[in-house]
Amino acid sequence: MKRLAILGSTGSIGRQTLEVVRSFPDRFEVVALACGRNVSLLKEQVAEFKSRLVCTETAGVDEIPGAALLPLEEIAAHPDVDLVVIATSGKAGLGATLAAIRTGKKIALANKEVLVMAGRIVVEEAKRYNAAIIPVDSEHSAIWQCMSGEERGAVSRLILTASGGPFRQSTQSQLAAVTSEDALNHPTWRMGTKVTIDSATLMNKGMEVIEAHWLFDIPYSKIEVVIHRQSIVHSVVEFIDGSSKAQLSMPDMRLPIQYALTNPERWESPFRQQLDFRSIGTFNFEPVDMDRFPCLGMAREAGEKGGTYPTVLCAADEVAVELFLAKKISFTDIAAVVAKTLDRHVGIKRPSIEDIFTADTWARETARKVFEEAE
Amino acid sequence: MKRLAILGSTGSIGRQTLEVVRSFPDRFEVVALACGRNVSLLKEQVAEFKSRLVCTETAGVDEIPGAALLPLEEIAAHPDVDLVVIATSGKAGLGATLAAIRTGKKIALANKEVLVMAGRIVVEEAKRYNAAIIPVDSEHSAIWQCMSGEERGAVSRLILTASGGPFRQSTQSQLAAVTSEDALNHPTWRMGTKVTIDSATLMNKGMEVIEAHWLFDIPYSKIEVVIHRQSIVHSVVEFIDGSSKAQLSMPDMRLPIQYALTNPERWESPFRQQLDFRSIGTFNFEPVDMDRFPCLGMAREAGEKGGTYPTVLCAADEVAVELFLAKKISFTDIAAVVAKTLDRHVGIKRPSIEDIFTADTWARETARKVFEEAE
Repeated sequence: MKRLAILGSTGSIGRQTLEVVRSFPDRFEVVALACGRNVSLLKEQVAEFKSRLVCTETAGVDEIPGAALLPLEEIAAHPDVDLVVIATSGKAGLGATLAAIRTGKKIALANKEVLVMAGRIVVEEAKRYNAAIIPVDSEHSAIWQCMSGEERGAVSRLILTASGGPFRQSTQSQLAAVTSEDALNHPTWRMGTKVTIDSATLMNKGMEVIEAHWLFDIPYSKIEVVIHRQSIVHSVVEFIDGSSKAQLSMPDMRLPIQYALTNPERWESPFRQQLDFRSIGTFNFEPVDMDRFPCLGMAREAGEKGGTYPTVLCAADEVAVELFLAKKISFTDIAAVVAKTLDRHVGIKRPSIEDIFTADTWARETARKVFEEAE
Repeated sequence: MKRLAILGSTGSIGRQTLEVVRSFPDRFEVVALACGRNVSLLKEQVAEFKSRLVCTETAGVDEIPGAALLPLEEIAAHPDVDLVVIATSGKAGLGATLAAIRTGKKIALANKEVLVMAGRIVVEEAKRYNAAIIPVDSEHSAIWQCMSGEERGAVSRLILTASGGPFRQSTQSQLAAVTSEDALNHPTWRMGTKVTIDSATLMNKGMEVIEAHWLFDIPYSKIEVVIHRQSIVHSVVEFIDGSSKAQLSMPDMRLPIQYALTNPERWESPFRQQLDFRSIGTFNFEPVDMDRFPCLGMAREAGEKGGTYPTVLCAADEVAVELFLAKKISFTDIAAVVAKTLDRHVGIKRPSIEDIFTADTWARETARKVFEEAE
C-alpha cells in the first residue's frame, strides 16, 4: 500500500491523480489532501478517499468533516505519508517540496515552478536527504523513462517535444490579436489555465528546459526543443553512441501521473489507449520559430544566467498571464512584460531560499509596474 | 579488455564489427576470426588484428600465417574468448552458438537463422548455462535497449518496424518482374546479399518476428510489424501502463553492433550521426500489405506452428533465394517455393538438434523438387 499526500488535489493534475488512485483502490491510500480555494470539492474528496489530513489556503475554513486540518508543510513532512504529489500551482509548492525532501520522502513533482524558482536548492537538498524527485510532466516523465537502465554520463542530448500550442502557425499580427478564449483552447492536452496560456506562449516549454536541466543534471547547451504537433512522442534522449530513445503514448496526463506513482514498476492502466502506428500515419517534427515565440529563448537565457533570474522569469510570467486573462494586456505583451522585468533585475548568483522569495516579490511588483508604465 | 571471437568476419556484419573494434583499439582484443570463403580478406584481418585463432570453411587451406586453425565450434568455446559475435549466415552459426552457450559466454547474435531454426533449444540452453544472447539486428537491438531497466512482465506489445524494402509500392505484376539487381538495391540499409533479398520479400521481417518471440519470450499475438520507410525508428516496445518506448538512430549497423559489444555501457561512437528532428520533418508509419508480401504471414504462421516449421521456412527460403539470384525463378516465386515446401512438411513438435538438421536437409531437397516440378 502506497500512502499518498496529494497537494493541489482539486486542480487538474490533482483530480487526474485521484482518477489514477481510484483505479487501484487496494494499492494506494490517500492519507492527505490539500487545496487552494475549492473547499467543496476537497470535502467530497476527503469523504471518498477517507483522507485523515487536510490543508486549504481558503481563509475562514476551520473544519473539514472527518479530517484534521494541518499546515501544508506539516502534511508534506507527515510520517504517515510515503509519497507526496506536488500538484499545487505557482510558488505554493516550494515550501512543501522542501519539507517533503527533508523527511526523505518520494516526491512526484507536477509543479514546475518549484524547480524553475529554486532548482539548485531543491536538487541539492534532495541529494542531501536522499529524496527522490520523480517528474510528472509528460516530457520529463518521458526522459525519466528513457533513462531507465542508462547511465547519466551516456546522455549526449535531451530533445523536449512541444505541441506548439494553438498558435503554432499564427503570424505575428495574429498573435497580437489572440484572446484568452483562443489561448485556453489547447489542441492536444487538457490542463489548468495558467499552464495552458504558458503552453500557447511556449513559456511552459522554456520552463521545462530549466526543469530538465535540474532534474537530469544536463547543461542547457544539450537541451533542445522541437515542435511535434501530434503530442505522441513526449521527448527523446540521445546517447553518446548515436542511439536515441523516445517515449510515446496518447496524450493523457493520467499516464505520466501513474508512472510517477508506481515506478520503477508499471501497472496496467485502465486509461491506456494503444498507439495504432498504422493509422497514426505520420509524426511531424519542426523547429520552433524563436521570433514569434520569444518566451522560449527568454526562459533558456534566464536558466543559463541562473541564480534569481529564473525566479524572476517565473513570477513575472505569473503576473503577465493574470493581466492577459484579465484582458489588460495582449497575448504578445506577456513576453514583453517578462522581458522588461528581467531587464531590470540584478541577479543574485547563489540565492538562499529567502533571496528567492525576495526576488519573487520584487518581480511581481516590477511586472505590475512595467504594465502600469505602459498604460 | 573484451576478448572477441568474430565468426563470419569477412561478411557484411563481420567487417562492420571490425570497423567498430578498430575505433577502440585499447578496449577490444580480436582473439579469433572465422570466415567462409574469403580467405584473402581473412588473412588481412588476422594480420591487422593479430588474431591467434582462425577458422575457414574453405577446403584446402591448411595455414593462415600467425594463427592456429581450429574448427568453428572450438573457437566459439575457446577459454580465451569472452564474447562471440555470430555473424555467419544461414545454418553455419547454429553449432557455434550452442558451443559458445555451453561455455557460458556472452553471444552477440547477428545470424537470425540460429533462432529461427532452433529457437527453443538455443533459448533453453542459454538459460541453463546462464549465457547472455545479445541481439545485433537493429530491430532487436532497439527492443533490447527499450527493455533496459524494465520488467519483461510489463511488456504488452512489440512493434517491429520494417523499411518496406525497395518494392513497398510495387504492384503485384511489377513484383513478378523484379530482377535480382532491383532486389539488391535496398533503400536504407547496406547488408549481405541473402538478407537484402529477404528484406525485399519481407521474409527477413517474418524471421525477425520469430527471433523476437524467442529473444524476448513474447507470444506471437503481441508482436506486430509496421512499415516505417525512413528506417530511423528501429522498433517500439509497448508497456501495460499505456507507455511505449522507441529506439531511434540513423540507419547504420555499426551502432547496434557496438551496443551488442559494449552493453550495458554505451561508448561514444565515431560513426554516430545526430538525428536532426527539425530537418527529418516526418516519420511515416503504414501497414504491411500482406497480400503483396506473403512471406511475412507465412513466417509468422510457421513460428506459431513451431517445432520444425520455422526450420523448414528458413531452409526453403535459402534455396528459393539462391534460385532467384541464379535467375531461375521470379521474385514472387520465392514465396511460392517456400509455401509449397511448408505445405509438404509434417512437423515435429519438440525437435532435437538432430531433428532440426534433418528437417533442414529435407526442406532444401523439397524446395529444389518444388522448383523442378514447376519447370
